[in-house]
Amino acid sequence: MKAVVYKGPFQVAVEEVPEPRLEADTDALLEVELSAICGSDLHIYHGKIAGVLPGTVLGHEFVGRIVEKGPLVPFPVGERVVGSFQVACGECPACRKGQFFACSRGGVFGFGLALGNLPGAQAERVRVPFARHTLFPIGDLPAEEAILAGDILTTAYGGVRPFLTPGMSVAVVGSGPVGLMAQMVAHALGAGQVYAIDPEEARLEKAKALGSLPIHPKAEDPVARVRRETEGLGADLVVEAVGGDGEALKLALRLAGPGGVVSSLGVPTAERLDYPWLPAFSRGITLRSALANVPRWIGEVLALQKAGRLKGSFVFSHRLPLEEAPEGYRLFHERKATKVALVP
Amino acid sequence: MKAVVYKGPFQVAVEEVPEPRLEADTDALLEVELSAICGSDLHIYHGKIAGVLPGTVLGHEFVGRIVEKGPLVPFPVGERVVGSFQVACGECPACRKGQFFACSRGGVFGFGLALGNLPGAQAERVRVPFARHTLFPIGDLPAEEAILAGDILTTAYGGVRPFLTPGMSVAVVGSGPVGLMAQMVAHALGAGQVYAIDPEEARLEKAKALGSLPIHPKAEDPVARVRRETEGLGADLVVEAVGGDGEALKLALRLAGPGGVVSSLGVPTAERLDYPWLPAFSRGITLRSALANVPRWIGEVLALQKAGRLKGSFVFSHRLPLEEAPEGYRLFHERKATKVALVP
Amino acid sequence: MKAVVYKGPFQVAVEEVPEPRLEADTDALLEVELSAICGSDLHIYHGKIAGVLPGTVLGHEFVGRIVEKGPLVPFPVGERVVGSFQVACGECPACRKGQFFACSRGGVFGFGLALGNLPGAQAERVRVPFARHTLFPIGDLPAEEAILAGDILTTAYGGVRPFLTPGMSVAVVGSGPVGLMAQMVAHALGAGQVYAIDPEEARLEKAKALGSLPIHPKAEDPVARVRRETEGLGADLVVEAVGGDGEALKLALRLAGPGGVVSSLGVPTAERLDYPWLPAFSRGITLRSALANVPRWIGEVLALQKAGRLKGSFVFSHRLPLEEAPEGYRLFHERKATKVALVP
Amino acid sequence: MKAVVYKGPFQVAVEEVPEPRLEADTDALLEVELSAICGSDLHIYHGKIAGVLPGTVLGHEFVGRIVEKGPLVPFPVGERVVGSFQVACGECPACRKGQFFACSRGGVFGFGLALGNLPGAQAERVRVPFARHTLFPIGDLPAEEAILAGDILTTAYGGVRPFLTPGMSVAVVGSGPVGLMAQMVAHALGAGQVYAIDPEEARLEKAKALGSLPIHPKAEDPVARVRRETEGLGADLVVEAVGGDGEALKLALRLAGPGGVVSSLGVPTAERLDYPWLPAFSRGITLRSALANVPRWIGEVLALQKAGRLKGSFVFSHRLPLEEAPEGYRLFHERKATKVALVP
Repeated sequence: MKAVVYKGPFQVAVEEVPEPRLEADTDALLEVELSAICGSDLHIYHGKIAGVLPGTVLGHEFVGRIVEKGPLVPFPVGERVVGSFQVACGECPACRKGQFFACSRGGVFGFGLALGNLPGAQAERVRVPFARHTLFPIGDLPAEEAILAGDILTTAYGGVRPFLTPGMSVAVVGSGPVGLMAQMVAHALGAGQVYAIDPEEARLEKAKALGSLPIHPKAEDPVARVRRETEGLGADLVVEAVGGDGEALKLALRLAGPGGVVSSLGVPTAERLDYPWLPAFSRGITLRSALANVPRWIGEVLALQKAGRLKGSFVFSHRLPLEEAPEGYRLFHERKATKVALVP
Repeated sequence: MKAVVYKGPFQVAVEEVPEPRLEADTDALLEVELSAICGSDLHIYHGKIAGVLPGTVLGHEFVGRIVEKGPLVPFPVGERVVGSFQVACGECPACRKGQFFACSRGGVFGFGLALGNLPGAQAERVRVPFARHTLFPIGDLPAEEAILAGDILTTAYGGVRPFLTPGMSVAVVGSGPVGLMAQMVAHALGAGQVYAIDPEEARLEKAKALGSLPIHPKAEDPVARVRRETEGLGADLVVEAVGGDGEALKLALRLAGPGGVVSSLGVPTAERLDYPWLPAFSRGITLRSALANVPRWIGEVLALQKAGRLKGSFVFSHRLPLEEAPEGYRLFHERKATKVALVP
Repeated sequence: MKAVVYKGPFQVAVEEVPEPRLEADTDALLEVELSAICGSDLHIYHGKIAGVLPGTVLGHEFVGRIVEKGPLVPFPVGERVVGSFQVACGECPACRKGQFFACSRGGVFGFGLALGNLPGAQAERVRVPFARHTLFPIGDLPAEEAILAGDILTTAYGGVRPFLTPGMSVAVVGSGPVGLMAQMVAHALGAGQVYAIDPEEARLEKAKALGSLPIHPKAEDPVARVRRETEGLGADLVVEAVGGDGEALKLALRLAGPGGVVSSLGVPTAERLDYPWLPAFSRGITLRSALANVPRWIGEVLALQKAGRLKGSFVFSHRLPLEEAPEGYRLFHERKATKVALVP
Repeated sequence: MKAVVYKGPFQVAVEEVPEPRLEADTDALLEVELSAICGSDLHIYHGKIAGVLPGTVLGHEFVGRIVEKGPLVPFPVGERVVGSFQVACGECPACRKGQFFACSRGGVFGFGLALGNLPGAQAERVRVPFARHTLFPIGDLPAEEAILAGDILTTAYGGVRPFLTPGMSVAVVGSGPVGLMAQMVAHALGAGQVYAIDPEEARLEKAKALGSLPIHPKAEDPVARVRRETEGLGADLVVEAVGGDGEALKLALRLAGPGGVVSSLGVPTAERLDYPWLPAFSRGITLRSALANVPRWIGEVLALQKAGRLKGSFVFSHRLPLEEAPEGYRLFHERKATKVALVP
């Protein structure tokens, strides 16, 4: 079958690879309907993920149909499903506590040796281990909506939902795909004012279209602006959706009002952060950094998608045939694409 | 000053009455900007509220500006506020527990002897006891929005918000003003599908405009329809917004799925209900009947109104000068008005 | 193997019955370590459960060890487990919502045709359908503690835990086994004062030993007493653990203070209840009647048992060999036993 | 009147100071029944709090009786009350959001210029600003219990209660007064196993007496031990009750399991912390550092004290007449006292 294969820094190719096969009773085999390129795939593209060797099949965002399954998979062949980007066994101590992201047998599709050595889903077919806890039926949801539930939308949802009380002020640092999803969730669940902070005008336009109040950090001091809008206090909830070296997270910490929560979703590239402990103590700040816990929240996400309250497919700027994946990676890398869908 | 005075069944008049004056250190005096006729005012109009004697000034929904205040009122003169329909002292055992609706010194404006003997707010001015816990600053919110926060919108909010998890299916029995507010709240807080059940087409039209799925009980069996839409289970949350003899509540109980909540907001005219205990036990049903607890929820409601998420003024069909209040009562009684605002 | 068999009203016998065998891939076969006679078994004994025909093997409370299992059972042979009194498939719409008590393929062990036609566990061995969702590992917990987690303790837990805020006043109507478990839970989770209302002195003694304040309804009016202790308000949470014709539930409704919750755990013998709707509305009462939802709460219950915070085996007055089950039923029926354990 | 006066590093004296007088309508004047020396008073004693000048009256933990009050104080003269160590106005934006610790007009008794310049309560009488939100009636609770509710017990409560689900494993770093209170709260609210980590044997003895499992960090690696006890995961909730330079907090972060919460109560002496961001992200850790928010939680604390569930007076090692306060400070400084009560 055809699949997107990592060849080395800045090089991906669509090649013939061996057909995946069931390897365990808990496996399912999917015919992929749609896959997507995620911001974290760019880290691989840039050659920064040590465990991803040339030859790795990429991709961890996908929707498809079950074509074959082991005896322990509770879904019927033919079921249309979205995959979680993470695999979780459902039986280990972490899974039994509902902390699926910490599954002792987990992994991420297409992320190489360090993360389970699971071939990715930018392919015609994909093998899904522990399908019971990794796949979720989607009925007739559009593929470009449902695919978001397996990764960036549920990442955003889990970073907003447990901390949001209706009417709260919410500041979101970063209006890339995850930041936009976080804003969309905040709007859908009854946040008060939502502030979007991002240095790119094009992203702020999208934030504005969602109903957020855009703040360009060059045009004005985001901290001063948010405080002015919140009786001098700062935001009740701050979502950090940038990651990287921690500068965005430091801004997020300053944006939070007394008793506020900073929910950090961006993937760190730095090991450590110079944390303003005393100010955080004095102002009673809660900081939570976390990967998505997809199985915990995807039920609510899918219900809201079905009810038409979360429509995130606007983040896709391109929809390409699988064969053109190299072009998709290039556009994304050059910031000419915001998110790319791939159709096998 | 001028005020709407109850003269007897089906008779109200606008008359000169004595100016209200401060009577306690906790009182405030308001110049009324807007008052409204509520469905429960019709019960008085129909002569069914025993404690309301001819001569009573009516009205418990109002927005105004503080023109005079006792020393224990924390708001400045000039503050623009909405009043809660209920008065609460804030100091008695019930108030200290946050159950303001059960205040031992409470009462309802314009509801006569049985409920605190407080002259109503369909008048040029109104005296507000325990102003600290009865008045809420509204900034520059439109009066026809803010006035809803003091009664029907917060009634609906308190009947939906504590029971709603995002994505839940919600059925609302009755699409009068309170039922419509309940639907609006459900939509704003991220419900899944919202079902509106009402026998009046005009009301269903409004429900539909809010995004609800209208169900006409003559056209189809609401219980069968809701079950069909919910994998055979029934609704997660059912709001009953009719009251009366209990028929609507019995329907609500049948609409609820296993583990479901029935939140009953309609005012009973019957003392007792023939409760289907065994079915409720078998299906794990929670039934909550309650008056609004305005001070508990109004902060969130006002925040959502300020953020533009709750816009309920569409329920007003008429806006009349105070002098035409008798016409307003007549229209409301004849079901030619859905809700009437009165401008002094 | 030997099992306790219903022979007709007031007649049970220990007889040889056919060995149970695996019938589905989701089945497990248990060697029973301990079973118990529950209050609801007495209803069968009294001949009041229509679906229980002579020849039915009784018993729905049990602890045992897995001796054989189908391929879809995730526990190893040899695992020591407690069984839920209810069976739940884990896959139907109700189960997927976490409302396992409403499982469309569910049933109760030893309750005959109406409830799944599942042979009971007062036997040497028992077949457990849907073992993944019906069995729960117990490590080395004493059998007389763990067995409670499968039925009466988790019934009580689910009736207290979701409604209890630390410091709340709690009134419990009925100090039979379920009522005592509810009191124990309230104490363990940080209730304020706990009031135990029961007409039997011996039961009140046990309530007192748990730390509850005993109230004998003949000695004083429970409603007046509880109000006097709660600044005139009534209890924050009332647990009804009697069932029957509804008299206990009516008392429970009167015991609740404004905004209070009545959690009804007793099994109704009446189809309907004459519900005081208007008073309940005026006082903002929540009434929840429900069977246990064992899989939802048993994780917390077992954790608290392992931590030594819930020790309920004091409710057992007798521990008999399985052969003496008829004597156990007789003692229980004559109220000479409060709860009987049976050792195969 | 007599009061404990700071004279300079390692010097306090009991001296005559001017009688306090009402200065605002919201003030109350208290006759002190009991005051106490807190660990944070030692920082002053050590001369480390810049804003505390010689001549400052010390003390922020106190119980007393109202002897005079301004017109805006809702309690009667004669009421027996505990004071919050912090003052909160109740009207500013932070207070209206319930974040009383961030009150724009707040302060801490006896902490000098930086914290409101409020004379302390180690005195015969004390003036209490904003008495409505700073004082709490205690009925007939023993003074040595109630006094804890105004500071260390409610600090601990607010650091445990919002994060604790029954059955959770809890690790507490530090078994000084705050750490012991945190353990006591965890036990009272139904934690699972509670682990107490402290290098002092005497403190571990007290932890053990509360029911905690003591871990001496010299005797064994606390992280390895806690993981071994929790199926390899780590604690669900970790309370850090040491403060200082951050070493205890770093240990706390390592003790937390995936999805765990670290609740940091110790007062930082360092401005910043070298935060292990990437590990925290990978394991989904929540870090909350905060001062107590006394008015938010004291209602529950007092209810639990009245119910006899929180009995913390065992932390007092000494009870001295006010005149012997200098001896009390010396003993506390020399670690010969764990906590000192002062009787005027």
